[in-house]
Amino acid sequence: MEAIQDQIRSTCYGCGADNEHGLQVKTFWDGEVATCRWTPEAYHNSGGPSVYGGLLASLIDCHCCNTAMAAVCGAEGQELTPDIKMWYVTATLTVDYLAPTPLGVELELRASVDKIEGRKAWINCSVLAEGTECVRGRGLFVRVKA
Amino acid sequence: MEAIQDQIRSTCYGCGADNEHGLQVKTFWDGEVATCRWTPEAYHNSGGPSVYGGLLASLIDCHCCNTAMAAVCGAEGQELTPDIKMWYVTATLTVDYLAPTPLGVELELRASVDKIEGRKAWINCSVLAEGTECVRGRGLFVRVKA
Repeated sequence: MEAIQDQIRSTCYGCGADNEHGLQVKTFWDGEVATCRWTPEAYHNSGGPSVYGGLLASLIDCHCCNTAMAAVCGAEGQELTPDIKMWYVTATLTVDYLAPTPLGVELELRASVDKIEGRKAWINCSVLAEGTECVRGRGLFVRVKA
Repeated sequence: MEAIQDQIRSTCYGCGADNEHGLQVKTFWDGEVATCRWTPEAYHNSGGPSVYGGLLASLIDCHCCNTAMAAVCGAEGQELTPDIKMWYVTATLTVDYLAPTPLGVELELRASVDKIEGRKAWINCSVLAEGTECVRGRGLFVRVKA
């Protein structure tokens, strides 16, 4: 399975395949759940032994936005290519930090579609570390022309 | 005036003065409003000509958290030093993206205290580009022992 970001290729700092300075978030969509795996570096700390919250918000933002793209393109039979004529942008992002996210382990993000109405898509996401949900996010993403 | 982060010094990826890989957010508190100025690089883009949303969430997160620290320490007469015995952590962060945030200009973040009750502090923040509010954030931060 190829990551959504490797199909559409952008320069987005969070997830663009064509941004060498970026976080390179990769989203794999199975038609129901989108999965992302990402391992923070030691310097991605919060000032203590846990992962910096702004980084976690960034991972959630990109992973959810690509989940919206994948779900809608899948439903419409649109191919995910660099020439794609639509895009989703973040309107609102909410992140609940349930527990400190440990450093030094691979994180798993699991996102799914809550609701799609017209140009709006609501996506939910959990961040898990060693099977424990540490962070929960939800976002409203709005479709625009590319 | 010295930035809060240069007084308390941490390794936080977002704002720690002692993290050479980090974003180095600096918060200046005048007793009522906290100001931060930060200029994104060209590679901090969203895949288009605007600033990446996850970066904006990160700036808001750190700036608001340091605003809570400054307000509470100011009210209690606690000195902001690296030996400080309390800290705030993010419980919930919500970010509304009102308009695309342009690249190539210095951003101004303005944060203020909405409410403080016991260990909880609610902080509001606006991100302005050339005087226009592009992003609005609010967070709930919880006091913990350092």
